[in-house]
Amino acid sequence: MLFQDTIVALATPAGVGAIGVIRLSGPDAIPLVNAVFKPKDLTKQATHTIHYGRIEDAGRVYDEVVVSLYIAPKSYTKEDVVEISCHGSPFIQESIIQLFVEKGARLARAGEFTQRAFMHGAFDLAQAEAVADVIAADSAAAQAAALHQLRGGFSNELAALREQLIHFASLIELELDFGEEDVEFADRKDLEDLVDQLLVAIRPLVASFRAGNAIKNGVATVIVGKPNAGKSTLLNALLNEERAIVSDIAGTTRDSLEDSWVLGGIKFRLIDTAGLRETEDVIEAMGVERTQAWVKKAQVVIYMADATTETAASIREGVTALGDLDIPIIQILNKEDQVSSEALHAIVKDMPSLICLSAKNKEGLADLEKALLDVVGLDQVSTGGTLVTNLRHYQHLLQTQETLESVLRGLKAGLTGDLIAQDLRYALHDLGEITGQISNDDLLKNIFGKFCIGK
Amino acid sequence: MLFQDTIVALATPAGVGAIGVIRLSGPDAIPLVNAVFKPKDLTKQATHTIHYGRIEDAGRVYDEVVVSLYIAPKSYTKEDVVEISCHGSPFIQESIIQLFVEKGARLARAGEFTQRAFMHGAFDLAQAEAVADVIAADSAAAQAAALHQLRGGFSNELAALREQLIHFASLIELELDFGEEDVEFADRKDLEDLVDQLLVAIRPLVASFRAGNAIKNGVATVIVGKPNAGKSTLLNALLNEERAIVSDIAGTTRDSLEDSWVLGGIKFRLIDTAGLRETEDVIEAMGVERTQAWVKKAQVVIYMADATTETAASIREGVTALGDLDIPIIQILNKEDQVSSEALHAIVKDMPSLICLSAKNKEGLADLEKALLDVVGLDQVSTGGTLVTNLRHYQHLLQTQETLESVLRGLKAGLTGDLIAQDLRYALHDLGEITGQISNDDLLKNIFGKFCIGK
Repeated sequence: MLFQDTIVALATPAGVGAIGVIRLSGPDAIPLVNAVFKPKDLTKQATHTIHYGRIEDAGRVYDEVVVSLYIAPKSYTKEDVVEISCHGSPFIQESIIQLFVEKGARLARAGEFTQRAFMHGAFDLAQAEAVADVIAADSAAAQAAALHQLRGGFSNELAALREQLIHFASLIELELDFGEEDVEFADRKDLEDLVDQLLVAIRPLVASFRAGNAIKNGVATVIVGKPNAGKSTLLNALLNEERAIVSDIAGTTRDSLEDSWVLGGIKFRLIDTAGLRETEDVIEAMGVERTQAWVKKAQVVIYMADATTETAASIREGVTALGDLDIPIIQILNKEDQVSSEALHAIVKDMPSLICLSAKNKEGLADLEKALLDVVGLDQVSTGGTLVTNLRHYQHLLQTQETLESVLRGLKAGLTGDLIAQDLRYALHDLGEITGQISNDDLLKNIFGKFCIGK
Repeated sequence: MLFQDTIVALATPAGVGAIGVIRLSGPDAIPLVNAVFKPKDLTKQATHTIHYGRIEDAGRVYDEVVVSLYIAPKSYTKEDVVEISCHGSPFIQESIIQLFVEKGARLARAGEFTQRAFMHGAFDLAQAEAVADVIAADSAAAQAAALHQLRGGFSNELAALREQLIHFASLIELELDFGEEDVEFADRKDLEDLVDQLLVAIRPLVASFRAGNAIKNGVATVIVGKPNAGKSTLLNALLNEERAIVSDIAGTTRDSLEDSWVLGGIKFRLIDTAGLRETEDVIEAMGVERTQAWVKKAQVVIYMADATTETAASIREGVTALGDLDIPIIQILNKEDQVSSEALHAIVKDMPSLICLSAKNKEGLADLEKALLDVVGLDQVSTGGTLVTNLRHYQHLLQTQETLESVLRGLKAGLTGDLIAQDLRYALHDLGEITGQISNDDLLKNIFGKFCIGK
């Protein structure tokens, strides 16, 4: 065991419920609980067994409880773990935790149980991070991506390729030791093949981050357009509730409204904005400014035009006015039901990607929904279900990809071993940081500090 | 088994945490979970064992979980119970519960697990009610009283005495059947002894309710006095924090302030009020009105006088002005440090129960605290640790006490069997309702409806 002390924390959410679970982990977990547990002797019980009794100390009965035993290494942390299921009373839970602290346990820091699991090799760092993602997941796609990563994800593949890379790197380092003799221990062709193989694995992972990030954090989707185009009506139609106040008066929406909407298991953060126009109204002008700020932060923009007032030219002009955006803009034409089919045709004939719909009648929404899902690009991701959702992983993977591409160029250009060795060291470092083979206290503190207490 | 369906609910508080526990109970609990649990066969496992695996259905992995098995009758409900410890994500918890509902489980109603435990004889009704009290307990005394009741409390004693009473009642009913023959199957002397015995058990229980209720709900303690007597300063001193705004200006406190304060394991609900005086200020007058309303709802009143401005006569007058209260009034004299010992003596010499203190300097508070604990009267309660904390129990016990006293008078007056039989029936009914030997759907719905879901 790496740790000498025993930690304790409430593992269930704070508050009143039917039950609450207090978790202890460490070398003294079982004797600590046993000292205040009646009537059984917990030190004589098998792992993965459940025992009914009461927590009692100095004549005071704390609660009637059910105790679950996990004997090392068959536990989450790979240490001895005891879980005490007590009544869901904050008062009782605090009293019992306090009792264990008095008896010698230490209050666990955020994420410390998972950190111990990682330190004991229960899983690698990328998997440990997935634990927090599993808990935070609030859509089916986010949950599936997090769970996939928790259960291995890209960790095993990367670890295997990294092992091979270490082999080559050490051969090249060896060459450097024999610097004067001009030997080649590392077969350049084999190394090139391995780097190719690594890039084949890493490139799609890097590319999957856009979808992965969208899935994890939700897709910031900003609806913009001129006043009275029907943006709030569209928000209400997509959410299927009267979220925004709508009226026929242009400029009804002054401030931005945001709400979450799950489509195809993916969360979209829909943002309804104030209409874009030159205005003298101070409050409305502030709204327009906010809209422009939202557009800058968006991952996709829905530009909504009004079929009763706009032309193809004015729509193009409106889109251009948004500025040079590096994100998809979905163009839609609202109020298709309020103009003749000739008028509609006149607008759309040169704009094949324009989606016609009626937000008020909830017609044509399916086309918009399909366009939104296309934007996330889940179906273009080819990583066998693995999505990179974590910014830290993405940055290291991107760095690795760039370094390996530099190695490849170096090999092809016949660069000397010392320059290649340098790049290989960088790549190994980045790969190692993802899975935690290389880590330091600050990194771990930063990662596990974001966990909840008790996990 | 009394129930054919299997119920499911989240047993831990809602929200994000390290883990959440989903509980199923009923004949299909194990097969329902087993159908979506991989890789072990749960139907082949022993009771009180823990199994690690995943919840999976139709190709979708819901979560990695730990499953605890309790095989009937060795469970809380005495039915088969499965507890699934999953990640503390509301999304995952809802998904899994929804999965079980689709597979045939029913969402549990509030308190339904405990109701099933009661129906299967795991405990009586008074104990079942104590489960909710244990969860709601927010002080050491309340928790101890609830836990004592959960573990048996007065239930067993009352049940035994009720059995004997049933025996006598049936003998007397028998006499009535032989109405014409003037026989006496029930020995009147023995019956009198039994009723005496019952009263010896019940009277202290009835008397314990004042303390029990105070412990469970907290003692509503209203601090009153003239403006600027130092009431808010006292509140702050007792709470040991700057809860109320204080100043030298009379009438600083206009509205009432309430805060909880635990003393000797007992919760006092301290209420600081606006000073009592005739006033033209409309807001202040409303405050005074509120103070009077508080006094009517109080369980104890602290009357605070100001040593620098009052005399023994004015204090008596102030207390008298509170009206005819049927609750204890603790009289205290504040600012003892600001007057000479002669002046102090002049006030207290005829008022031995007046407690002198300085709220500002936190001097003399111990005497006030002792007086408050005396008011609750815990030390005068002689029920061997059993306190009646439940209003429903108290009402039935009080009714039983009165009925039995009437039986006793009847026996002494030589009343005929039919009148005594009538009273005995009432007493048996009241006693039976406490422990649930007599119950009906409305009563049970009312009791368990106040529980949380999942308990």
